Amino acid sequence: MRIMVLGGDGYCGWATALYLSGKGHSVAIVDNFVRRQWDHELGAQTLTPIRPLADRVKAWYELTGRTIDCYNGDVTDYDLLSSLIQECEPEAVIHFAEQRSAPYSMIDRRHAVFTQVNNVVGTLNLLFALREYQPDCHLIKLGTMGEYGTPNIDIEEGYITIEHNGRKDTLPFPKQPGSFYHLSKVHDSHNMMFACKIWGLRATDLNQGVVYGTLTEEVALDEALINRFDYDEVFGTVLNRFCAQAAIGHALTVYGKGGQTRGFLDIRDTVRCIEIACLNPAGRGECRVFNQFTEQFSVLQLAQLTQAAAKELGMRVEIDHHPDPRVEAEEHYYNAKHSKLVDLGLKPHLLSNALLDSLLNIAVKYKDRIDAQLMLPRVNWRSTRNDRRLAMNVATGTPAV
Amino acid sequence: MRIMVLGGDGYCGWATALYLSGKGHSVAIVDNFVRRQWDHELGAQTLTPIRPLADRVKAWYELTGRTIDCYNGDVTDYDLLSSLIQECEPEAVIHFAEQRSAPYSMIDRRHAVFTQVNNVVGTLNLLFALREYQPDCHLIKLGTMGEYGTPNIDIEEGYITIEHNGRKDTLPFPKQPGSFYHLSKVHDSHNMMFACKIWGLRATDLNQGVVYGTLTEEVALDEALINRFDYDEVFGTVLNRFCAQAAIGHALTVYGKGGQTRGFLDIRDTVRCIEIACLNPAGRGECRVFNQFTEQFSVLQLAQLTQAAAKELGMRVEIDHHPDPRVEAEEHYYNAKHSKLVDLGLKPHLLSNALLDSLLNIAVKYKDRIDAQLMLPRVNWRSTRNDRRLAMNVATGTPAV
Repeated sequence: MRIMVLGGDGYCGWATALYLSGKGHSVAIVDNFVRRQWDHELGAQTLTPIRPLADRVKAWYELTGRTIDCYNGDVTDYDLLSSLIQECEPEAVIHFAEQRSAPYSMIDRRHAVFTQVNNVVGTLNLLFALREYQPDCHLIKLGTMGEYGTPNIDIEEGYITIEHNGRKDTLPFPKQPGSFYHLSKVHDSHNMMFACKIWGLRATDLNQGVVYGTLTEEVALDEALINRFDYDEVFGTVLNRFCAQAAIGHALTVYGKGGQTRGFLDIRDTVRCIEIACLNPAGRGECRVFNQFTEQFSVLQLAQLTQAAAKELGMRVEIDHHPDPRVEAEEHYYNAKHSKLVDLGLKPHLLSNALLDSLLNIAVKYKDRIDAQLMLPRVNWRSTRNDRRLAMNVATGTPAV
Repeated sequence: MRIMVLGGDGYCGWATALYLSGKGHSVAIVDNFVRRQWDHELGAQTLTPIRPLADRVKAWYELTGRTIDCYNGDVTDYDLLSSLIQECEPEAVIHFAEQRSAPYSMIDRRHAVFTQVNNVVGTLNLLFALREYQPDCHLIKLGTMGEYGTPNIDIEEGYITIEHNGRKDTLPFPKQPGSFYHLSKVHDSHNMMFACKIWGLRATDLNQGVVYGTLTEEVALDEALINRFDYDEVFGTVLNRFCAQAAIGHALTVYGKGGQTRGFLDIRDTVRCIEIACLNPAGRGECRVFNQFTEQFSVLQLAQLTQAAAKELGMRVEIDHHPDPRVEAEEHYYNAKHSKLVDLGLKPHLLSNALLDSLLNIAVKYKDRIDAQLMLPRVNWRSTRNDRRLAMNVATGTPAV
């Protein structure tokens, strides 16, 4: 299958591109490398020393004989995006090419506006390019479980049947996103549903949970293929961050009570879910929604699991409760359905001690690259100006604040 | 009360600014006059010969002794908007400053992207400016009944209580908007709800129906105060367009079967609803939604009412059914609640023969300004490239196509 991976240099994108290439699909990556630029902006870096994309795909070719075409470009540039769609004639496009961090979107007005314009315009461009040049192509779009918020009823997969005053209809599930980033995904979802309806496009909106892990079978082949492992407060996902904290003896930063419950999944399941979506395309005019996660945990549960796994490895780790920098319920009902991908063949990798050990060992291996300052919560939802730009002390190389 | 009217040179904005000024409020208008520019782009003009804003407010002052401050500016320019908020210190801001036409947003990709970026960024800027400089100010934002689409259940005012699997919650009413413009309003609504939640802002989202009429008591004082009357297929609202068609003996353009049912209101009720919202502000942290319309009609019903009223005035008018250029249900259930504004004191001006006569007479008075070409549907939802730019025949002044 000819598959384009937009944002294929990122955390989920790179793992997905390799997995699909390994399965024999013809893969093309489009990326503008802005994710690497954001690390420079924040003075952060991935725990793992990732290589430039050109080196990564060269290593992949040398190891497997498989080629991945790479294009440098920004999906908000319609001329570029539409010319690539015409050139590649993809049967599926996987759209990871968005700003994906809630805290990044909450830094200040400029970051909020950037996130929404970047994500909304990129997706609009993609919808128009598919309609104009590749209308039968299957769009697989990464959404987020965070679009739903934490309603006091069960969360369905995208749509809910409502009985009201004696009548009934199946409608989009009401959305209560919790950051300007999550809002951008809600905007995308509405735009996609509409484009499928009026133009007969086929789309799958994958409302993904919080991803953890860094190794997939392909990434593990060689150090040159290593994937991102973000541990900073802005881009780090919670379990990865806890493991990095444990590795340097830093207390695990739980926000508030830690009762915030979310859906989680292993990155090995992310890549498999994407393949399942590719192999089972949505129908023409259909905008299908899958909830893409395998297990629910509260943040405190994850902290306790990390603490226990670290103890087994001989590391003593404390848990610190910080005032929650986000505006969110710290205790709430949460029950989100997630059976559609399982029905299509997903065999989940549930969170195990072995996986936690592996994550902790990776964090220990690269612990010299960890900057503890980057893990403390500094982006506060209640403030409209969170200055993330640190003045560096030139003599010591440490933040001057 | 100190009130800012963003978009105060437009159709609803101008009528609102005069009404509030007439009631003794201190009114400041912010407008960048882009609505007038869109007329040039489309080769269209308002039926009524509106004056420049400076002349209008001068005439208002001469007639009433009341001043309205006017600022030229674009709400997507944060420096400008935030400085005006600081200067005016408004107790209420009424936000009309958006691209408000569904067909305009459906012309092509450029217009779709412009509409969403313009509307979303303007509203985000306003939310940030209020949070930073005037956090107690009441934001009154124009939404649209079109955000809801046409679900097969009763439409509530913004929120719906859902019972599901034995649990219950009150959630945002699911949205099924029918154009990239309507989608932009849904994006705004979600952004507003979030900003109220995290920053404690107070907001009223007025989901307005289709407005008809042009005369309010204040506008009627003098020809110099005359309001817009759009009749073209892009910006003309349906009843105004029908009256313009009747005035020149043009068949009324009904799209499809004409069973499309919507909420409608007289512009005299628009201005009163805005005042009611001002006088009864939302609480801190509250994002309140009112459905702002007074009666439901199908498009065919309105065509038949126009036909009958025209006949009384001695005009023979046909009704033409065109293939629907939009993707929408031509027959459907529709029952939208609209009691909250009535509970706060709205006394509706229902659609009467007298009002239809008045509208028809205005259309007849200015019929020499009507271009019949502009009333035929040319923006097709199914196409991504609807060329609205006409080559003009220089010799005849008529379109060359």
